[in-house]
Amino acid sequence: MSSEPGRISSKRVYGGKVISVDIDTVQFPNGTIGDLEMVRHPGASAVVPFLDLPSSPNPRVLLIRQYRYAADGYVYEIPAGRLDAGEAPQDCAMRELREETGYSARDLIPITTFYTTPGFTDERIHLFAATGLSAGEAEREPDEILDLVPIPLSKAIAMVHSGEILDGKSMIGLLLASQFAHRE
Amino acid sequence: MSSEPGRISSKRVYGGKVISVDIDTVQFPNGTIGDLEMVRHPGASAVVPFLDLPSSPNPRVLLIRQYRYAADGYVYEIPAGRLDAGEAPQDCAMRELREETGYSARDLIPITTFYTTPGFTDERIHLFAATGLSAGEAEREPDEILDLVPIPLSKAIAMVHSGEILDGKSMIGLLLASQFAHRE
Repeated sequence: MSSEPGRISSKRVYGGKVISVDIDTVQFPNGTIGDLEMVRHPGASAVVPFLDLPSSPNPRVLLIRQYRYAADGYVYEIPAGRLDAGEAPQDCAMRELREETGYSARDLIPITTFYTTPGFTDERIHLFAATGLSAGEAEREPDEILDLVPIPLSKAIAMVHSGEILDGKSMIGLLLASQFAHRE
Repeated sequence: MSSEPGRISSKRVYGGKVISVDIDTVQFPNGTIGDLEMVRHPGASAVVPFLDLPSSPNPRVLLIRQYRYAADGYVYEIPAGRLDAGEAPQDCAMRELREETGYSARDLIPITTFYTTPGFTDERIHLFAATGLSAGEAEREPDEILDLVPIPLSKAIAMVHSGEILDGKSMIGLLLASQFAHRE
């Protein structure tokens, strides 16, 4: 009895506030059957905010520096957050940018959508570049303690190479956003 | 009563085969206290295997193409796998490269270590470039169904930009490995 690879059955072993965990019984392409632990996540959007025209010489981007319990300290990131139920990735990107930094963007340019770590979670992050920023008031959650860090994109990319930026989505966003930036 | 930010208490709500989930009560830097769901993961190593001298014109790297249930299909990745208990990241990188592809490497060059998605997991991936490869026999798990895909690094990076490669660790590894490669 052959069939397409995929789920045979699923059992929820943890239902949480942000994530849930299922143990899924899966048929693999060679017919093997096995159990996989899958962390279910609603997905997220993340934004590389350009403070200057990307085509200008050495444009600046806006990073945030925030406390991350998982990393046991402060990390540099690009603005990002989880999708609300039914929310379009573009709307989430605009909302998170505004809530975390106070900035609104005139334009969002899709960069890519990727799997953060597909061995154990279905989380996908939608990456955008934001241009035409205008300042406003941030609306942060009580546990969002963060500083705004305007920085030349070239310097941010140097920090990815040096290991000073070690958050996956931020590394990918900054490295890929360089395609929009002026090259000397 | 002020103190360093960090864990106040922790409750394990799921203990699994690969991952576990804790609900940790955390003090944030501004004194706020809140609960966070944290997926505990042992960490992993991943390798960008250079089939040619990185300094040669247009060097090739070795990708794998494998079925990923989380992505509901086949994805291109670099070889990678979880750390065994007490295993050094370098040893894990060498072992996973050999098990998944059959290749042994003469040299491993550390690229960086990053957090895959620090909002909800402590997983870190140690990235290496591997050079001086010699072929041998792969030793795959029953659910590791994969093809070996030798490809010029320049083409792999084009696939990151086009969205054909959408696995986070592979995107970061390939984009950063280009620093070792010959530039025209």
